[in-house]
Amino acid sequence: MNTVVQKYGGSSVATPERIQIVAENILKLKSQGKAPVVVVSAMGKSTDDLIKLALEINPEPSKREMDMLLSTGEQITTSLLAMALDRLGHKAVSLTGYQCGIITDDFHSKAKIHQINTARINKELNNDNIVIVAGFQGYNVDSGDITTLGRGGSDTSAVALAIALEAEKCEIYTDVTGIYTSDPRKVKKAHQLSEISYDEMLELAKLGANVMHPRSIELARKNNMILYVRSSFDFDNMGTKIMEVKPMEKAQVRGVTLDENITRISVPRVPDKPGIAYKLFSALSAQNVHIDMIIQNLNYEGVNDISFTIPTDDLGIVLPIVNAFVFEVASEEALVEQNVAKLSIVGTSITSDAKIASGLFGILSDLGINIEMISTSEIKISCIVAQNDAINALNEVHDFFISNHLIQ
Amino acid sequence: MNTVVQKYGGSSVATPERIQIVAENILKLKSQGKAPVVVVSAMGKSTDDLIKLALEINPEPSKREMDMLLSTGEQITTSLLAMALDRLGHKAVSLTGYQCGIITDDFHSKAKIHQINTARINKELNNDNIVIVAGFQGYNVDSGDITTLGRGGSDTSAVALAIALEAEKCEIYTDVTGIYTSDPRKVKKAHQLSEISYDEMLELAKLGANVMHPRSIELARKNNMILYVRSSFDFDNMGTKIMEVKPMEKAQVRGVTLDENITRISVPRVPDKPGIAYKLFSALSAQNVHIDMIIQNLNYEGVNDISFTIPTDDLGIVLPIVNAFVFEVASEEALVEQNVAKLSIVGTSITSDAKIASGLFGILSDLGINIEMISTSEIKISCIVAQNDAINALNEVHDFFISNHLIQ
Repeated sequence: MNTVVQKYGGSSVATPERIQIVAENILKLKSQGKAPVVVVSAMGKSTDDLIKLALEINPEPSKREMDMLLSTGEQITTSLLAMALDRLGHKAVSLTGYQCGIITDDFHSKAKIHQINTARINKELNNDNIVIVAGFQGYNVDSGDITTLGRGGSDTSAVALAIALEAEKCEIYTDVTGIYTSDPRKVKKAHQLSEISYDEMLELAKLGANVMHPRSIELARKNNMILYVRSSFDFDNMGTKIMEVKPMEKAQVRGVTLDENITRISVPRVPDKPGIAYKLFSALSAQNVHIDMIIQNLNYEGVNDISFTIPTDDLGIVLPIVNAFVFEVASEEALVEQNVAKLSIVGTSITSDAKIASGLFGILSDLGINIEMISTSEIKISCIVAQNDAINALNEVHDFFISNHLIQ
Repeated sequence: MNTVVQKYGGSSVATPERIQIVAENILKLKSQGKAPVVVVSAMGKSTDDLIKLALEINPEPSKREMDMLLSTGEQITTSLLAMALDRLGHKAVSLTGYQCGIITDDFHSKAKIHQINTARINKELNNDNIVIVAGFQGYNVDSGDITTLGRGGSDTSAVALAIALEAEKCEIYTDVTGIYTSDPRKVKKAHQLSEISYDEMLELAKLGANVMHPRSIELARKNNMILYVRSSFDFDNMGTKIMEVKPMEKAQVRGVTLDENITRISVPRVPDKPGIAYKLFSALSAQNVHIDMIIQNLNYEGVNDISFTIPTDDLGIVLPIVNAFVFEVASEEALVEQNVAKLSIVGTSITSDAKIASGLFGILSDLGINIEMISTSEIKISCIVAQNDAINALNEVHDFFISNHLIQ
């Protein structure tokens, strides 16, 4: 069975016309002798409408009931897409998460997939049916309750199904044509990549290239499932292939990103005692705050200056914790700087080539831009810069590493 | 367990405000020490919206996929109502037809309930949860597919659950306060009945008192489940109780109805041969046409005049069949009369009291109204009259049998 899993996001199935277009694309795959298993999201913004309705009734709805409610959105799309395929002359069958055996834990609203019993899907494929699966949902086998998978849920459904079905590949259809070297809205010269490694894609996803959720990419990487990110608005574009790429000898910058939703917090003159930083960061992580960069400078007077960055959205949670910490350890008052942005370059092994880091710092220096913080991983170098300089810096760095190298 | 099943129709749960009102009514029942099991329909006209969406995509959608689609409407209501109860401080749990064990046959869009496995509902009731069930739906245990119960489905869900749970009673909440002696829009003096027998209610339901579908009433009668028809817009009104009523010695007319959606068809001069009427009526019933009254007069020339009535909506199906019959048996051309209406009086044993029939014919005669056809059952007498005379006749008959007798 040459199974191929396709996933169509909300904008791809937002209207009856869009559903027809998607059905035609599925039949194209079928006519190539493949067995399509198609995962769909809820139509357009219909999930938001359901959330609004729920909040009108109860500002703090139980997660179990929210899952019951929201899972209907994907179910609606599955049946409509099966009808569209039927009209085009091909048998299709829609399945809920329960019906296609997607078993999860019982963490409603952010469930994790434990297992997929593929018996029903295989039976339908053997009957030459195109199988349409409701994304984002599963069920807990102990309670019999419907669960949802949380953010990036439909992508995760698709990747997990592809793995369970030993599919050839998993195509993620969205409203962009693929992965770009940078955000085309900010960098005119940004261009689409024909392929990218899981690791690079993961860094880009985490750094704000909002195409796929890191969770589904990690799952694909672990199982070596080849992904394609493609557009359902431009089927001629073959999209970006995401796969295990053997690092080439020469390290290359593959993408340049900018995250403007970031705030730097500095706590000056923290007493230099063991465990004192742990106290602060464990309190923050207990609130699920994602702390990105941390810098701690030992000052000559035997006190530390601690700086770190957080998503600006979390500021309301973070400030009370930081203020309590300041009070407890008797440091100086915390400084909050929102006018910052994180500029990053991404590419396999780039930190192993010192010329790349020095090149980055050189450009920023030539532009007269001060680097406030730096962090690196094996495939990423990030700098915190002033937000006012950020777009200019992004374009210059993209020019230097990518446009002038003509990497595809 | 003092279980009471309540069912709320689409208009009762059409908006978040309505759902709040329903939640409060459920808590009133709970505070009386009862264990509520609540069956809900889809919100307002949302089922119609889904049907419209489906027909845009496929003018002839498969019934399996329609069931998958439409079942989401009730599921949405269940979760919202559970959220509303939770907000009012009481634990509630929503269940799909599958989750509460409503097993049906596999006739999609008109499935019949085979069995209800009440284990899950009982478990939830034992945990002091209010149980909210999606009406209109079940599942087929062989395929694992979602089914819907067709017209009157949510009422049927409610009655079947009440029977399976051995509930004290089943309350059907709708947008009218109960069962009336006649249609209040046509008969000013019509008043609400405090109770009525299953048989009488069945006749009224069949004759167009559009409150409950006959199917659910029959199910209640067979199992002697006490029903209440009540309004969710007027909780002070105790509604109409439907139950087994021992016939009193004196037969009474309990309701007067008028069905204007009726057409009379006459086929004159049909040869008087055995099986010739069967030929016509079996062809019609093969198309699911409900033939109501049939009159066959043997004419002195050895030919029959056959007349019958059909719902006017079925005329498009009926005419070609009748014309083919006319051609085959070489009778005279069929006559179609749409300007007719069916006036009926309903009451247990009324045909056993000759004075009632003669009373009816007397009034119509006094009004100068010609009775074109008559049919009777044990609890009903129907007359076909000209539509122009019908509303006047309805009021006069209601006056004579009901208003002037002050029957409650």
